[in-house]
Amino acid sequence: MSLTNHQFRLAARPMGLPKRSDWNYVEEPVRDPGEGQVLVKVLYLSLDPAMRGWMNEGKSYIPGVGIGEVMRALGAGKVIASKNPSFAAGDFVTGLSGVQEYFISDGKGLNKVDPRLAPLPVFIGALGMSGLTAYFGLLDIGQPKEGDTVVVSGAAGAVGMIVGQIAKVKGCRVVGIAGGADKCNYIVKELHFDAAIDYKSEDVRKSLQQHCAKGVDVYFDNVGGDILDAVLTQLARGARIVICGAISQYNNTTPVKGPSNYLSLLVNRASMKGMVVFDYADRYAQAAREMAGWMAAGKLKSREDIVAGLETFPDTLLKLFKGENTGKLVLKVADA
Amino acid sequence: MSLTNHQFRLAARPMGLPKRSDWNYVEEPVRDPGEGQVLVKVLYLSLDPAMRGWMNEGKSYIPGVGIGEVMRALGAGKVIASKNPSFAAGDFVTGLSGVQEYFISDGKGLNKVDPRLAPLPVFIGALGMSGLTAYFGLLDIGQPKEGDTVVVSGAAGAVGMIVGQIAKVKGCRVVGIAGGADKCNYIVKELHFDAAIDYKSEDVRKSLQQHCAKGVDVYFDNVGGDILDAVLTQLARGARIVICGAISQYNNTTPVKGPSNYLSLLVNRASMKGMVVFDYADRYAQAAREMAGWMAAGKLKSREDIVAGLETFPDTLLKLFKGENTGKLVLKVADA
Repeated sequence: MSLTNHQFRLAARPMGLPKRSDWNYVEEPVRDPGEGQVLVKVLYLSLDPAMRGWMNEGKSYIPGVGIGEVMRALGAGKVIASKNPSFAAGDFVTGLSGVQEYFISDGKGLNKVDPRLAPLPVFIGALGMSGLTAYFGLLDIGQPKEGDTVVVSGAAGAVGMIVGQIAKVKGCRVVGIAGGADKCNYIVKELHFDAAIDYKSEDVRKSLQQHCAKGVDVYFDNVGGDILDAVLTQLARGARIVICGAISQYNNTTPVKGPSNYLSLLVNRASMKGMVVFDYADRYAQAAREMAGWMAAGKLKSREDIVAGLETFPDTLLKLFKGENTGKLVLKVADA
Repeated sequence: MSLTNHQFRLAARPMGLPKRSDWNYVEEPVRDPGEGQVLVKVLYLSLDPAMRGWMNEGKSYIPGVGIGEVMRALGAGKVIASKNPSFAAGDFVTGLSGVQEYFISDGKGLNKVDPRLAPLPVFIGALGMSGLTAYFGLLDIGQPKEGDTVVVSGAAGAVGMIVGQIAKVKGCRVVGIAGGADKCNYIVKELHFDAAIDYKSEDVRKSLQQHCAKGVDVYFDNVGGDILDAVLTQLARGARIVICGAISQYNNTTPVKGPSNYLSLLVNRASMKGMVVFDYADRYAQAAREMAGWMAAGKLKSREDIVAGLETFPDTLLKLFKGENTGKLVLKVADA
């Protein structure tokens, strides 16, 4: 073979929003897979807010990407050569591909998927890490009960849209917080959330009082900042806050804004707990099966915002932080 | 009878530290107890950081004290007249007395105590609300396991000193954070904490790294502010933070400082949960018995910082916020 692999490697640790100069776009020849290895052609990449954290140095739930290393990313692709008995050329797979056109894997963490069951991008979205994050964060940490009021921020994003729909499956009243009328329409009209709050045009605190008159039982937080503080003012007694992310704070050049209203946890005997989806790896398969069942039954819809072209990666990633995507942001790298 | 009752009534809602002019010191005649009522002579009053919150307007875990009302306080006293069959003149009791010399109760929330078992002030401290707060906050919310590292702030205060000692009973390594060498000596030498951090002279973050090298499993927070933020940088995976209070923030005239490092909850899959002791009322008796047993066995020591004179109340209360008390701050109102 004489294939060329284009890659984005981390050139510098960003201050604030990642700039084009924080990346190196490089090419290298694709090598043949060794014994036990698989060569995968990347077709789609998952773009996630968490990537911003991976670009930082220092202790987190996984090590940061090193300077000069290929940027970490989850991807979906097609096996084009295999010396691993578990995979054959032509198999479709998901795994930690990195932001590049080809990757070699020893098979660990590589999962075969069946594109007849769902379009390939869904396996890195609603049925992938985004959906699993929603599933375990909401059900294990949030522990919603039938009739509970569940609020989710980033509600039209990859995780939020799934959180709200699972909460509806569980018989909850669901209020989504999103930016702009289009996103708000989408979650109410398409996904059947009970209400939407447009943080760009509404006073979130007042709207929460209106839509969650009995208080918020579960808050699934993807954004942090002022919205977290607003929700803290409207907690029901015994409320559970799931800390999944804080996209409003990831590109700060000043210290993170801590939740000023955190003493509401005391007043309301409420809890705030962090979660990382990787902890649930032994239950991924069961959860994905259950979600696939909800999809088949029309209870769980998926939406992807697909941008084509690996070379657009630096700009496409920024759509997340500018709130420009509705649904799961996916980078299309190649045709199958 | 022709007794006179001196009282402190709330004159104004304080901005920042309560001033003398926020109180009215008034007197009124003591009336006879009616049918089913008890007249109690107050001997000791419990002074608590929570009182600052009770002086505010607005929603909290209990209503604020109204302007013109007698300031809420827990007290210990002696029944001097009773028309309630459950109490007799000469009984020693604890209950919601208010900041005054006499109070009339219908018996609800009034508890008989035996001063032969412990000095009367202990029943409003280590064996009263302070001790019960420590007991339920640490054991129910913090859920320490043998070998865990437990950190407590306000460690030489009424609640903190009990938290640390109960954690020692449970086989934990205990690190207390307190202000000044005297308090630090007290908790290490008298109460046998494993280490003390003097926040007035040490870099709390660095000292935590040194004393809690494997991370903090349980943090019992009485203070909030910078110390909460420092502890958040040193959490062990799965850590539990008990939000009991935030004395550093109660007299703010600016917004509460939220914990900037709260995303450590995500990284470490940790939780932060608020607690209010009143929720455990049906278990008070069992807990107090267990703590009395530890006291009798020499495993739980109590210390009171007793100031005499009801009229000193406005200034004595401020000792809490200036960090001037070691042990439970008690106002002595009268001799038995």
